[in-house]
Amino acid sequence: MVAASLFLCSLSLSAQEPPLTAQAVIDRIQKNVGIPWTTPTVDTFKAGDPNTPVTGIAVTMMATLDVIQRAAASGKNLVITHEPTFYSHMDQTAELEQSHDAVFSEKEAFIREHHMVVWRFHDHWHRRNPDGIQFGMTHALGWEKFQDPSNAHLFTIPETTLDGLASSVKHKLDIVALRVVGDPRMKLTKVAMLPGAGGSASQIKMLERDDVEALLIGEVPEWETVEYVADAATEHKHKALLLLTHIPSEQAGMEECARWLKTFVSEVPIEFVPARQPFWLPK
Amino acid sequence: MVAASLFLCSLSLSAQEPPLTAQAVIDRIQKNVGIPWTTPTVDTFKAGDPNTPVTGIAVTMMATLDVIQRAAASGKNLVITHEPTFYSHMDQTAELEQSHDAVFSEKEAFIREHHMVVWRFHDHWHRRNPDGIQFGMTHALGWEKFQDPSNAHLFTIPETTLDGLASSVKHKLDIVALRVVGDPRMKLTKVAMLPGAGGSASQIKMLERDDVEALLIGEVPEWETVEYVADAATEHKHKALLLLTHIPSEQAGMEECARWLKTFVSEVPIEFVPARQPFWLPK
Repeated sequence: MVAASLFLCSLSLSAQEPPLTAQAVIDRIQKNVGIPWTTPTVDTFKAGDPNTPVTGIAVTMMATLDVIQRAAASGKNLVITHEPTFYSHMDQTAELEQSHDAVFSEKEAFIREHHMVVWRFHDHWHRRNPDGIQFGMTHALGWEKFQDPSNAHLFTIPETTLDGLASSVKHKLDIVALRVVGDPRMKLTKVAMLPGAGGSASQIKMLERDDVEALLIGEVPEWETVEYVADAATEHKHKALLLLTHIPSEQAGMEECARWLKTFVSEVPIEFVPARQPFWLPK
Repeated sequence: MVAASLFLCSLSLSAQEPPLTAQAVIDRIQKNVGIPWTTPTVDTFKAGDPNTPVTGIAVTMMATLDVIQRAAASGKNLVITHEPTFYSHMDQTAELEQSHDAVFSEKEAFIREHHMVVWRFHDHWHRRNPDGIQFGMTHALGWEKFQDPSNAHLFTIPETTLDGLASSVKHKLDIVALRVVGDPRMKLTKVAMLPGAGGSASQIKMLERDDVEALLIGEVPEWETVEYVADAATEHKHKALLLLTHIPSEQAGMEECARWLKTFVSEVPIEFVPARQPFWLPK
């Protein structure tokens, strides 16, 4: 009894605040996200030990090696990423390991040697109300005042041409490789936005609406929504598609995530680390 | 007995050559393709009546409405297409019909009213030896002399930079929206080509090879092979990716298909009808 008391006493004397682990940060996210946490989900740890004490948090759109290196260089060892780390939606690494893939191995080794932890925040950040990505992208475009109060995906903007809209979006979001389908001279006011790669079923549903003339997306297979809008243009229907590429179509939604995280994590520095766009266009 | 004989006689007197139906053309393709015809396959009729007498054949990369209209205008009622007609790999139309989709309905009505027949030629044209798409694309690039005799996907080209290769491919294939990942100044001679959207597993396998520095593809989700090559570039590995967009990455393979078809179908005119690229790039 005496020994036990001494032990407890010594614990309480030497213990400062327990270190904030990666798992504790995720627990706090789950508590604050405002919707039930449901499984299966891709919102899981992708690399590193969840019990690692966190020195700082880098929030990003895509945990490319470049992003992870920049996070490590600034002393942040927890990377919260919207998109995959290992080149597939499920972050399956079995095949890459089996073939001793050199690109994967070097990334995995960097994460291990620098005691980094990578956790994905995709499904629940979208499901949150409002959708965190949609909210951040609307803010980045400055479109809050044009947003439909009953449907956050819909906007009524001042009349412009498709070409005008495309240029404006390209410059506001600093997009390298924006591609457009539709008549550049088409006049429009009614725009919908579905960031990322939500799939052609929901994209086509959106384009079927009378109150949607142009749809902004990240990407989609070219034999799906792209062919659909090409046909719509042949039929002289008032429809257009803007493919922003994936990173710039959602990136500002993770900048918003970093802002939100700071409202309930104050022990460590939190920084939004933008992922670089991978593309360039040849002459 | 007398009546039956008269009937037979009258049949044989009035019958000229039986008309070449769409089904008969496909039967002849199956007989000539040089590999066993295996099911399930997407190489099936997508619209129209297989018993329609064929007035001419339009061979195309993608049966967009624009292509179908141009085929009809030139009197060709059988369209042989490499890619889907109705916006999904399986050409499923149930949802489009249920929602009375206006874009689909107008395309479907045009096909019906003009008695057009659309048949897809994808799986077996690829599986043929040599792969008909790979063969046609190699010809379009003028790369026969650089091709590895033991692997039609591999080429050793005269030394150039990635930027030089990208410009050359862009101009040879007249590509509107070619996107590149990798260091533009990287010098290279070893190139691989996997036209279309063959999937990241086979693309990454190709990029793992020591004898592949740059890979030409049609398209891929940006969180797959695109992120992989972006990471490879961060690791200063000698790897690059050229995304040609889907249509120009396979189109010449269907021009080759039209040439091939003429070697065993001579009753009706056969024309290659190039699908227009859907994209434009804003300023």
